[in-house]
Amino acid sequence: MTNISIDEAREKLMSLQRRMAAYDHAMGLIYYDGCTTAPKETAENRAVSMSVLSEEIYRQSTSDETVEFLEFLDASRNDLSPDEKRMVYLLLRDIREMKKIPMDEYIAYQELVVKAEDVWERAKNSSDFAMFCPYLEDIFAYQKKFANYIDPDMDPYDHCLNEYEEGLTMEACDRFFNRLREGIVPLLKRISEAPQIDNSIRHGYFPASRQEELSRHLMKQIGLDLGHVGLSTTEHPFTTSLGSHHDERITTHYYENDFAYSMYSVIHEGGHALYDTGSADELAYTVLDGGVSMSIHESQSRFYENIIGRSRAFCRLIFPELVRIFPEQMEGHDAEEFYRAVNKVQPSLIRTEADELTYSLHIMIRYELEKRVMHDELEVKDLPAEWNRMYKEYLGIDVPDDKNGVLQDSHWAGGAIGYFPSYALGNAYGAQFLAKMRETVDFDACIESGDFGPVNEWNREHIWQHGGRFTPAGLLSRVLEAEFDPGYYIDYLENKYTELYGL
Amino acid sequence: MTNISIDEAREKLMSLQRRMAAYDHAMGLIYYDGCTTAPKETAENRAVSMSVLSEEIYRQSTSDETVEFLEFLDASRNDLSPDEKRMVYLLLRDIREMKKIPMDEYIAYQELVVKAEDVWERAKNSSDFAMFCPYLEDIFAYQKKFANYIDPDMDPYDHCLNEYEEGLTMEACDRFFNRLREGIVPLLKRISEAPQIDNSIRHGYFPASRQEELSRHLMKQIGLDLGHVGLSTTEHPFTTSLGSHHDERITTHYYENDFAYSMYSVIHEGGHALYDTGSADELAYTVLDGGVSMSIHESQSRFYENIIGRSRAFCRLIFPELVRIFPEQMEGHDAEEFYRAVNKVQPSLIRTEADELTYSLHIMIRYELEKRVMHDELEVKDLPAEWNRMYKEYLGIDVPDDKNGVLQDSHWAGGAIGYFPSYALGNAYGAQFLAKMRETVDFDACIESGDFGPVNEWNREHIWQHGGRFTPAGLLSRVLEAEFDPGYYIDYLENKYTELYGL
Repeated sequence: MTNISIDEAREKLMSLQRRMAAYDHAMGLIYYDGCTTAPKETAENRAVSMSVLSEEIYRQSTSDETVEFLEFLDASRNDLSPDEKRMVYLLLRDIREMKKIPMDEYIAYQELVVKAEDVWERAKNSSDFAMFCPYLEDIFAYQKKFANYIDPDMDPYDHCLNEYEEGLTMEACDRFFNRLREGIVPLLKRISEAPQIDNSIRHGYFPASRQEELSRHLMKQIGLDLGHVGLSTTEHPFTTSLGSHHDERITTHYYENDFAYSMYSVIHEGGHALYDTGSADELAYTVLDGGVSMSIHESQSRFYENIIGRSRAFCRLIFPELVRIFPEQMEGHDAEEFYRAVNKVQPSLIRTEADELTYSLHIMIRYELEKRVMHDELEVKDLPAEWNRMYKEYLGIDVPDDKNGVLQDSHWAGGAIGYFPSYALGNAYGAQFLAKMRETVDFDACIESGDFGPVNEWNREHIWQHGGRFTPAGLLSRVLEAEFDPGYYIDYLENKYTELYGL
Repeated sequence: MTNISIDEAREKLMSLQRRMAAYDHAMGLIYYDGCTTAPKETAENRAVSMSVLSEEIYRQSTSDETVEFLEFLDASRNDLSPDEKRMVYLLLRDIREMKKIPMDEYIAYQELVVKAEDVWERAKNSSDFAMFCPYLEDIFAYQKKFANYIDPDMDPYDHCLNEYEEGLTMEACDRFFNRLREGIVPLLKRISEAPQIDNSIRHGYFPASRQEELSRHLMKQIGLDLGHVGLSTTEHPFTTSLGSHHDERITTHYYENDFAYSMYSVIHEGGHALYDTGSADELAYTVLDGGVSMSIHESQSRFYENIIGRSRAFCRLIFPELVRIFPEQMEGHDAEEFYRAVNKVQPSLIRTEADELTYSLHIMIRYELEKRVMHDELEVKDLPAEWNRMYKEYLGIDVPDDKNGVLQDSHWAGGAIGYFPSYALGNAYGAQFLAKMRETVDFDACIESGDFGPVNEWNREHIWQHGGRFTPAGLLSRVLEAEFDPGYYIDYLENKYTELYGL
């Protein structure tokens, strides 16, 4: 490779990323199709295509030729632009990690995960942890082994955290979660002793077709460009980026007895889509296009869902639209009642249905459990009992069965160990972003008037446009011009709920 | 490659086809997504991914390594199974053709076609042939050049026909179309002098949601397995196979003032899907999965649409369902009226809306015109005038503008020269299949009773299961145990319309 020029290597760099983006597009779309419109018995056909395409991308992105030109660019990094440097760094990092895992173990693990997800789904439906247990044991065993191959000098759970949030450590998580617990637990206790909120406005009969009308309205209201963001329905809401430039799909699920579930799913997924469609054009078809990390991504989705969507200002803005779409159902209700209903605090079994205040407690339980398993301090077979014990301790509730307990999330079945903390971190980042934003943006006035321009502009300028240019920590300190401080989030919760519950 | 065994080469053969199926799946799905659910402004993203993936498949399927093991297998073909022999033959044929075209011309042509399709669409919308003319000139020029590269000893239009129907020649087409014309033109004249059919039963207000219910019913009625065949809506109905085993998508378009348009689109596309999902399991993930050629494919789609769907027996079967779904609209009508309405003969401007009798005349016009252009007997710029002259001559109607004339079809813009005859051949094959089927199946009784089992079984046994195992001509002679004879089709039309119009 000594005989190619830096410009030729640069071209190879862009061409590699363009190719990877096309494979990602194909695989993302096959997955999305499976969740949305594919006929029910075509899973095998999809599995075959997915395995072929993922092998292709693996082979190409780790080939000797690829490594050679990337290392050449890495050695000449002083001649590269900062964006190019970051691309080379990220690509080489992934390849080097990948190459540390013996090929046969990598393939065996991929096959395990495909099986485990299938078994998990059946185990969940029949609330049978024993069926899933051996698969989860294998997944944790592989995770420990892989962590040791890749970062033998690092704590294996730190390695897991790093996979989802570059630079994140257990130490930082422990500090963060302790602080959160100190803030949330006493607040929760005071709320439990106060008069409870009546949220009956959420319930009734809300036809899916009317809810879809609401979804479209919400998407436009928060500033999504519907030319680049599509909406479908799936069992569980999610967002996916197809290819590598501004083709986003969000999904929701309509429960006809509770319009708020889909409403807040759409705003949440819409936050992800705003972020992904906000990255600068010059990042198109590169690994820097789209969001930088899970926690920054969640900071955006939960910013729109909670900080905006569950604010009094937004509830006032949107209530007339609810009256228009659901005239009979909203009869006799008002915006304040709606605001209170969507902020009702109630410890519950299911993470994805949790209110803003108790949500982080669900995360902490998962964090503690997976950390202990990764450290061999807890056996996989003992997870259900520990799960139930902690739900009693943290949330004061009894878990009736594993379906509503340890089997509720798909993350572990998919091998995503170390992923959960991002959700809670995202919440806390969002609160500090809000404080910073308020220095220059009249946030409440914008939301209540429906003029999202200044709010979205601030996010675009400070966060969205940069895609994966910086590390998550680097981006955070650029945006905040200060250290990350969970105190902002605690204060936000304290103020909101003290007022709401008249504490 | 002399150092690999035949079994290793066989494995490479299967692996190559599996890979090609995965790329086809990805590209087919990206196209389908673009027509169905993709947000409107994401075409560029799709174009980038499509161009990457098609380059990948080209590179891999024509690599030296691929050619080497295929030639090795070809040299050892006496040790191969008939299916393997056919796979090797088809793969090598395509590679050899591809390699005869200089790479730069191939790429330039691909780019031309992408542009031409875009220009065609705009030209059609503004009915402006002059805008499209230079692109179409270039397309014909490339087609002539490529025909000469690939088959220098063959007539260039014969080469074009061969691309869509292995073994088809102009001589066979001329014979076929002459015979058809002799049968259809006098019949059409007699019909035009008879009392005309009142088809007002088709028209009224038919909500799309009710029409969708009818679509699902029709799909089940004709025997489609809804676990493997999906339904969506698009501007123009089509069928696509995703990947290489039994994942079919059909599409339709609902006109709320005419339920019959979508009804017959669904049956037509359903016929394609029956064929594609009927191929034997052992052909999965090989080039032999799915239909053998365009004309055999059309023989199936038009068999279900016309021979079955527009038969009196089927109209009687389905009428009670129409009454159930459209009770008010069907009030005062009966099955016979419905049968007559969907068989009304009326020369018209648009091929895709033509009745069963005049349809072939639309095809003949296109066949004559493209043949003359390929032979330099007609200039592209003179196509509109010739088109209009022939519509007057063949169908007796005046073409008001190019949008409803020479610009109506997308085929030429996509470079599909030589494709049209398949449609007419398919019609005629179907009529001869019917005669053969009647030898062992009580066709009318099956249809009128709604028991499609014996009809579908016959098609599966004789046609569907074989996928691309045989040449189209080979399959035809196996099924018919006789020469192809368009007389069956003429007789079918003669009998049907003589009775219908009381001639």
